[in-house]
Amino acid sequence: MEKDLSQFIRNKAFLDKIVSAEEAASWIKDGMNLGMSGFTLFGEPKVFPKALSERGKKEKFKVNVYTGASLGPAADQAMAEADIVNLRVPYQANPVMRKKINSGEMYYIDQHLSHTAEEVRKGTLGKIDYAIIEAAAITEDGLIIPTGSVGNSPIFVEKAENVIIEVNISAPRAYEGLHDIFIQKEQGERKDIPLYKVDDRIGEIGIRVNPEKVRGVIISEEPDIPSPLLEPNEETQAIADHLIDFLNKEVEEGRLPISLAPLQSGVGSVANAVLKNMKDAQFRDVVVHSEVLQDGIFDLIDAGIVKFASGTAFSLSKKRVDSLAEDLEKYKGKIMFRPQEISNNPEVIRRLGVISFNTALEVDIYGNVNSTHVSGTHIMNGIGGSGDFARNARITIFVTPSLAKGGAISAIVPFVSHVDHTEHDVDVIITEQGYADLRGLPPVKRAEKIIEIAHPTYRPQLRAYFEEAKEKVGGQTPHILEKAFSFHQHYKEKGTMLFEQPEEVK
Amino acid sequence: MEKDLSQFIRNKAFLDKIVSAEEAASWIKDGMNLGMSGFTLFGEPKVFPKALSERGKKEKFKVNVYTGASLGPAADQAMAEADIVNLRVPYQANPVMRKKINSGEMYYIDQHLSHTAEEVRKGTLGKIDYAIIEAAAITEDGLIIPTGSVGNSPIFVEKAENVIIEVNISAPRAYEGLHDIFIQKEQGERKDIPLYKVDDRIGEIGIRVNPEKVRGVIISEEPDIPSPLLEPNEETQAIADHLIDFLNKEVEEGRLPISLAPLQSGVGSVANAVLKNMKDAQFRDVVVHSEVLQDGIFDLIDAGIVKFASGTAFSLSKKRVDSLAEDLEKYKGKIMFRPQEISNNPEVIRRLGVISFNTALEVDIYGNVNSTHVSGTHIMNGIGGSGDFARNARITIFVTPSLAKGGAISAIVPFVSHVDHTEHDVDVIITEQGYADLRGLPPVKRAEKIIEIAHPTYRPQLRAYFEEAKEKVGGQTPHILEKAFSFHQHYKEKGTMLFEQPEEVK
Ligand SMILES: CC(C)(COP(=O)(O)OP(=O)(O)OC[C@H]1O[C@@H](n2cnc3c(N)ncnc32)[C@H](O)[C@@H]1OP(=O)(O)O)[C@@H](O)C(=O)NCCC(=O)NCCS
Ligand SMILES: CC(C)(COP(=O)(O)OP(=O)(O)OC[C@H]1O[C@@H](n2cnc3c(N)ncnc32)[C@H](O)[C@@H]1OP(=O)(O)O)[C@@H](O)C(=O)NCCC(=O)NCCS
Repeated sequence: MEKDLSQFIRNKAFLDKIVSAEEAASWIKDGMNLGMSGFTLFGEPKVFPKALSERGKKEKFKVNVYTGASLGPAADQAMAEADIVNLRVPYQANPVMRKKINSGEMYYIDQHLSHTAEEVRKGTLGKIDYAIIEAAAITEDGLIIPTGSVGNSPIFVEKAENVIIEVNISAPRAYEGLHDIFIQKEQGERKDIPLYKVDDRIGEIGIRVNPEKVRGVIISEEPDIPSPLLEPNEETQAIADHLIDFLNKEVEEGRLPISLAPLQSGVGSVANAVLKNMKDAQFRDVVVHSEVLQDGIFDLIDAGIVKFASGTAFSLSKKRVDSLAEDLEKYKGKIMFRPQEISNNPEVIRRLGVISFNTALEVDIYGNVNSTHVSGTHIMNGIGGSGDFARNARITIFVTPSLAKGGAISAIVPFVSHVDHTEHDVDVIITEQGYADLRGLPPVKRAEKIIEIAHPTYRPQLRAYFEEAKEKVGGQTPHILEKAFSFHQHYKEKGTMLFEQPEEVK
Repeated sequence: MEKDLSQFIRNKAFLDKIVSAEEAASWIKDGMNLGMSGFTLFGEPKVFPKALSERGKKEKFKVNVYTGASLGPAADQAMAEADIVNLRVPYQANPVMRKKINSGEMYYIDQHLSHTAEEVRKGTLGKIDYAIIEAAAITEDGLIIPTGSVGNSPIFVEKAENVIIEVNISAPRAYEGLHDIFIQKEQGERKDIPLYKVDDRIGEIGIRVNPEKVRGVIISEEPDIPSPLLEPNEETQAIADHLIDFLNKEVEEGRLPISLAPLQSGVGSVANAVLKNMKDAQFRDVVVHSEVLQDGIFDLIDAGIVKFASGTAFSLSKKRVDSLAEDLEKYKGKIMFRPQEISNNPEVIRRLGVISFNTALEVDIYGNVNSTHVSGTHIMNGIGGSGDFARNARITIFVTPSLAKGGAISAIVPFVSHVDHTEHDVDVIITEQGYADLRGLPPVKRAEKIIEIAHPTYRPQLRAYFEEAKEKVGGQTPHILEKAFSFHQHYKEKGTMLFEQPEEVK
């Protein structure tokens, strides 16, 4: 390491605490609760979890790992492979870890992302033995400057008995000034979150830490981890088009101004396609109040469509990671990261009147949404912030291609095999077939609209279910319980949800 | 009418607008949207809906009826019987109306009670043609003083094209001063709801109305409608005992002070039993931040346990209705009613850190809750405010007797036939068998706890399902979809959920 560390660790007390990752890892005891920075691969400690995982290969111990959201290969995957995780909270998205969870080899609590900080505050998850936080710098007065995410780091630092800071000297210097760290008091002792406009600064640029709790400072040079860039395909493009159509109609009918309302977009291919599409849309001076900021945001700022974007984390492709240092300078004052407790807070989302769109795994004919469980049992990632936004948004949109697995699965089913979002919280559903605007409709009228945006091959069998349910059972929400999972059942037995192969498949 | 009306209608402009209920009813046109006051039988207009229903017997028309929550015999039942309701929003609890909804003769949108005002503001429910509001008085400067509920009256009055005020001259005069009417601006233009302590006064004592919109004033003398008093039985008593045990443990372990945290309690027999039980508990200076205030509150104030209670409506027995005029004087300054958008607002519930308990119809082994749909299809009442509280509370508790229909139904099932509250939002479940504290537990560990509080006759078959699901299917949330509704199926076919009659039933 050639660089002058005092440029990064500008407070002497912290310079004295530098230790190796191995040493820090050796402090961790079996059964401890670790609070780690990191959210969608960005901002996670990288050398500490690797060292801990290495230790795990030689020594038998398990820890509980709490984070902002998903960590990457150096953390979630390494720890899962080393088999050192007992319980993981509140979100993950790593294939290796996912497998361990679904095979029962480790525990996982899938939690609303705005709830975790409250759970830590209340002690429901036990005390935090160690907080391990990636930092771009430690300031003169001892503030920890986060890197590409804030997540739950502030609450972990506040509540932890010990803090380990992983200073990443390869992180862009311009991270400093990008964050807005606002800490809430206990429930019952707090006032409001004074965030009235998306670009209001309400907190400090870094995380305040009691220096006495800082047991070690680790130096890292591991770069930010890029996410795969998901280029739009025909399907995601069509979904994006319908979404823009829907928003255009809202503007035309006077329900939204040309600046829309603060936007939240989920992660993944559809979200990226939408952001791409927006470049050619009529919207102007849009603000973004999201969880994750993806590549598309920068282009929209360049195009003059978005004027300010806040979130709790980046999720960027290789191209953007490579130019991040310059970009952070370029977009200074137009981007801000807050704790996920603030970005995802019901108070803020509802006050601002966010328009939210997230991806569903499956949706049922009444508009209940499964975001997490394949076949109702095996977790994909987790609910993430989708519930925080869905419940409190001004308009709640879920998007999904109408088919999965090459047509063997219909994303629209009679009854979702797992419910993450109830019909009460879902306003609009979009597939490549079109959009179903469910606002102001009772269940049986919702079903009519939803069946219309199923794939044509599945519409007949969905309609048959719905008609039979209305006729034979009736009620506010007609169902035939013994056939509610007949699509899933058919898929399990025959490898397809399609009851009969149609003559001509569209 | 012997009374001097100018005592009640203290602004001359309104005195000039007195009309008969029949005349006011004649203004209503087919297809109109009516916003009515009223919540759990209290504070609803009484003579207007009756007159409208009478007109409906002679003339064919339908209206959409939006309210705070459930109305009583004079309104919901009369209108359902006269068949004049096309769509009802957001809650009802009347047996006659329920039947019409479930038979498909009328539409019903079952909505989070904190959401309706936003929907009206956004226009999702169309414009409000008439607001019909019961009042205890109209003040000199034209404020409408509500009676025993606030509900959605403020937003209806604000947004309606026309307002009809039903002044109830038999209502206690002491209603004046009991209300705290705070109006929010549009999303994106509002600041916070400045309610930091339950007893903060943040608004006016009445609803401001543009006098030009007031088309008529009707005089009524119909008394408040009492709710049936539900005396505790052995079962509800046992549930109440477990709830108090749970709270005691929270206090003992230092997670709650002796004043607990603001309490919300659902309506019905269990809620009443809990309130009764609390009289002998150790808690002191408790505040209540609830939706509905029932009889028990007064006794708790008398006992020095509760020091302040806020809600959006009363739900009182005959005994309390009879003494209401004196009671309102006696409890002045200790009781307050706010719009349901405020009482049930996520911002407020989360900030205050409310402890919430509500009743479930059924609960599944992972802690998902059905509050609304019998057998997944037929609506009972609606989700009401249970979701507003469950999602945002500090501790979310659902209570239910472990059995229904004399043991033919287990309230604990493998998979709930309708999901109103997902496992993410449920912390504790209580039956007469005990409590299951699910906080900090992953799904498979939740199931262990929940099966233990099922009725002993059902535990073996629940355990058999769970073990088979873990073994044969596995995953984060093990299920066997083809058997998920086997309990419901058995009930439908055999009249009981019990697969085998046990030798000796406890
Ligand atoms: C739902 C979610 C998994 C979709 O992600 P995505 O990358 O857009 O989805 P994909 O279309 O690539 O599907 C992912 C996988 O699920 C499979 N899948 C999709 N729908 C399915 C269904 N109904 N049944 C079974 N499998 C399905 C796909 O085939 C694909 O499988 P593969 O990885 O084996 O190819 C993802 O958005 C998510 O985790 N959401 C929950 C959290 C959230 O909403 N966060 C937003 C931030 S607030
Ligand atoms: C869930 C709810 C219906 C329970 O009400 P309650 O009066 O305590 O319940 P009861 O035990 O009397 O049950 C009501 C009926 O449902 C039946 N029932 C209960 N559990 C059942 C089940 N699992 N399956 C089928 N029927 C069931 C009972 O037998 C009873 O039927 P009956 O009227 O024919 O005798 C009621 O609390 C409710 O509507 N909740 C939703 C709204 C809410 O929570 N509001 C709270 C304010 S924030």
